[in-house]
Amino acid sequence: MNTIRITIWNEFIHERTNSEVGRLYPDGIHGALATALRAHPELEIRTATLREPEHGLTQEVLAQTDVLTWWGHAAHDEVDDQVAARVQQGVINGMGLIVLHSGHLSKPFLRLMGTSCHLCWREAGERERVWVVNPGHPIARGIDRFIELENSECYGEPFGIPTPDEQVFISWFQGGEVFRGGNCWTRGSGRIFYFSPGHEAYPIYHNPLIQRVIYNAILWAQPQGIRADVPRHVPVEEAREKIVARGLRLHEADGLLQK
Amino acid sequence: MNTIRITIWNEFIHERTNSEVGRLYPDGIHGALATALRAHPELEIRTATLREPEHGLTQEVLAQTDVLTWWGHAAHDEVDDQVAARVQQGVINGMGLIVLHSGHLSKPFLRLMGTSCHLCWREAGERERVWVVNPGHPIARGIDRFIELENSECYGEPFGIPTPDEQVFISWFQGGEVFRGGNCWTRGSGRIFYFSPGHEAYPIYHNPLIQRVIYNAILWAQPQGIRADVPRHVPVEEAREKIVARGLRLHEADGLLQK
Amino acid sequence: MNTIRITIWNEFIHERTNSEVGRLYPDGIHGALATALRAHPELEIRTATLREPEHGLTQEVLAQTDVLTWWGHAAHDEVDDQVAARVQQGVINGMGLIVLHSGHLSKPFLRLMGTSCHLCWREAGERERVWVVNPGHPIARGIDRFIELENSECYGEPFGIPTPDEQVFISWFQGGEVFRGGNCWTRGSGRIFYFSPGHEAYPIYHNPLIQRVIYNAILWAQPQGIRADVPRHVPVEEAREKIVARGLRLHEADGLLQK
Amino acid sequence: MNTIRITIWNEFIHERTNSEVGRLYPDGIHGALATALRAHPELEIRTATLREPEHGLTQEVLAQTDVLTWWGHAAHDEVDDQVAARVQQGVINGMGLIVLHSGHLSKPFLRLMGTSCHLCWREAGERERVWVVNPGHPIARGIDRFIELENSECYGEPFGIPTPDEQVFISWFQGGEVFRGGNCWTRGSGRIFYFSPGHEAYPIYHNPLIQRVIYNAILWAQPQGIRADVPRHVPVEEAREKIVARGLRLHEADGLLQK
Repeated sequence: MNTIRITIWNEFIHERTNSEVGRLYPDGIHGALATALRAHPELEIRTATLREPEHGLTQEVLAQTDVLTWWGHAAHDEVDDQVAARVQQGVINGMGLIVLHSGHLSKPFLRLMGTSCHLCWREAGERERVWVVNPGHPIARGIDRFIELENSECYGEPFGIPTPDEQVFISWFQGGEVFRGGNCWTRGSGRIFYFSPGHEAYPIYHNPLIQRVIYNAILWAQPQGIRADVPRHVPVEEAREKIVARGLRLHEADGLLQK
Repeated sequence: MNTIRITIWNEFIHERTNSEVGRLYPDGIHGALATALRAHPELEIRTATLREPEHGLTQEVLAQTDVLTWWGHAAHDEVDDQVAARVQQGVINGMGLIVLHSGHLSKPFLRLMGTSCHLCWREAGERERVWVVNPGHPIARGIDRFIELENSECYGEPFGIPTPDEQVFISWFQGGEVFRGGNCWTRGSGRIFYFSPGHEAYPIYHNPLIQRVIYNAILWAQPQGIRADVPRHVPVEEAREKIVARGLRLHEADGLLQK
Repeated sequence: MNTIRITIWNEFIHERTNSEVGRLYPDGIHGALATALRAHPELEIRTATLREPEHGLTQEVLAQTDVLTWWGHAAHDEVDDQVAARVQQGVINGMGLIVLHSGHLSKPFLRLMGTSCHLCWREAGERERVWVVNPGHPIARGIDRFIELENSECYGEPFGIPTPDEQVFISWFQGGEVFRGGNCWTRGSGRIFYFSPGHEAYPIYHNPLIQRVIYNAILWAQPQGIRADVPRHVPVEEAREKIVARGLRLHEADGLLQK
Repeated sequence: MNTIRITIWNEFIHERTNSEVGRLYPDGIHGALATALRAHPELEIRTATLREPEHGLTQEVLAQTDVLTWWGHAAHDEVDDQVAARVQQGVINGMGLIVLHSGHLSKPFLRLMGTSCHLCWREAGERERVWVVNPGHPIARGIDRFIELENSECYGEPFGIPTPDEQVFISWFQGGEVFRGGNCWTRGSGRIFYFSPGHEAYPIYHNPLIQRVIYNAILWAQPQGIRADVPRHVPVEEAREKIVARGLRLHEADGLLQK
């Protein structure tokens, strides 16, 4: 069984400034997710938070991370641009990224999507149904037709994202909205999953089905192939050899090589 | 016949610093493209270049631009980040963007793609064949099975882009490479076309078939619907009304409204 | 203004066998759609129905059809396989196809999708909200954030379709379901739009917003480029010439030509 | 290590009617692939051929097949439509399908793609380069920048397929063509990979890199989640319960239930 190295990143602000959130997540959202994921022995789990140096996401940490999960909301702007760029490059090089709930406006997600990632929202403790629209997808494993959340924050369309490569879940909200809340993309060599349930004011990350989806997403998002960006320049020497081998008029190649 | 407002943007450096390029494009690449496109009376054409204030891409200019074409190579870093962000937002709001040749590393394209956009390249004046892989696509109108360019710069795979929404052209190179050189994406409400032929050292933008592709791409990329980003917040008042109408427990809604 | 030649196809059974449906659509669903679309002078409209010879879809009719709309429900099996194949080939050659409501199980749609196209359904006269998830898409022109239908048949996920190339609408249903009800695909040179609202027992096709979507879809689906399938064989003569030009060992080419 | 059950299907005609092909593949193409894949202990391999009853693809065999590979060329029409439909349904239910070379015109592939799957071709023993365009994709594992085949049949664009969900390889041909020869799709719950190299007159299936790609594709295509088609009807009883729970006017629901 190959080990998957997970880094669970959390802004970790609401839990310390809002007593209700603190009661729901006494160890922080990252702590709740880490506890749930420790049930899976193949996962090697670390956590990182905003207030740590480099937000706990040094080059070394990212180099040892197969899948990064991201939760942020109140302090997206406090995330250093260099760290955001580092996360983006990590994904391009093959690291998996799972963006949770309000992370839709986090710097790494915005950089990777290239769009506004805006959405409509409403906080009214509505019933949400997270429907499986792709029952054969590995991220839907173990989930029946839908996950019902009695109280959830409403996220609504239009959601300003590029067309997902794969759509796994679409949410229904009691107040009358729908939302593409379980979306897959590949960027560079990395896989990205956005999963919308999980407002800090509701115990959604304690829901075993939500935890299962996140676990499934980790398995799906782990690096698939080589972990490197694409090469760049092909030297003219090699070009000449190829061109001559193809019978290109020599004076032409010579002229080029003198450039 | 509705008018389409085009802004042709060019870095305009090589033409002034390299005599061979200056001979090929005495009015600049932007001038050559403008001259070619003026054959189409429905196009209202302006040009803009790097050295102008705000690179000639003020908010006013972009607000009056339906499709922007971009050529840059030597000075991508000199493009102001605010202007690059303005172009990105313009696309998200519905403006079309046509990125030419070495513009694959321009700031607006990188911001919209979210990936490295790296590629392999070789300057050896090879034969290139730009193959139509999607003959029913509007950008391929008037093009036979391929466009042959006797001398071209080789761009090779892997090309670090998100999977194109539509693939129109793939190039063959004499030296042994292939390249996805005619690619469509939608980002936000805007359409983006990347077209690889067009090195400054070759008269490719004087080729009527290349000009035809760019014209076709302009027609395809023009704004399709509303020109605005997505809305944001749904007021709680409206939420309450909806929730009450759906029979949600009132104390819950009240609690929310007091927040 | 170029003319767009529309053929509106309808099974035309329920209207003649069910008095309630007959009252809603005295001229048939095809008649109601034709009447609505005649408001657009650029459309040249004809209708065709199941009981006509070749279902009214002869080779001649399809050759003169730019966009075909399809409504069927009770008698999918009565559609002749040759006619279904003819419609499929027409789309591959560039004809637009708009499949309405229960047409998701029609032979032409099944042949073009390649999947089961199954869905969940319930007839309970629920409220439906057809949400715009892609406000910049031409098919969403003139539609606000959603279309509300007070009484509609529920179609629910999972919907057994290939991932849509573009998602324009997703429906919300009062009973708790969501459904991808406005989906775009390209197959061959043709464009396909599936639009789910429109049960025969409700006056949905009399709704001006539903009519607007269908009109928008016609404009979107009209042929974009050449109307022909792809070519096939490249003769060996031409191959030899190319190969010799590229310096392939002659005995090799000779050997090949003797085959 | 979980076992993956493979069925290697081969038309098995050329090997018995053409002495040169018989010399290259004395045990048939299926035999050569089986021998190569037996190097991987987790694969449980069986073969099946056209002339067997039901072409060796009974319901029982397919029910016990995780990934089916398909090679056919001379006798596509001899494949029974019921068996082709069975393979299609197997894929929809989650079985992986790997279609090789001239299988692009096989009945199962045509049914799943919904398009013509036409291509251009030329038999001239040209050099082919199979370029990796997606180095992070699992099907490209262990492959350097390209695979070079000294003598290959040319397949050329346009290739009449739906836009691939993922593009892994694109081929370059010495005679001047390009071809999308390594393409991924998902249909229903099943994954499909088309891989173009492999003409019967060349020893391509003896090439270890080609064998590696096919092995990688098997790992990628194995069933990912549940193996079942989507459910269908939601009973009105359940509908009523849901509707009442949502506060729908009762007389309305009653009226519906009396239908």
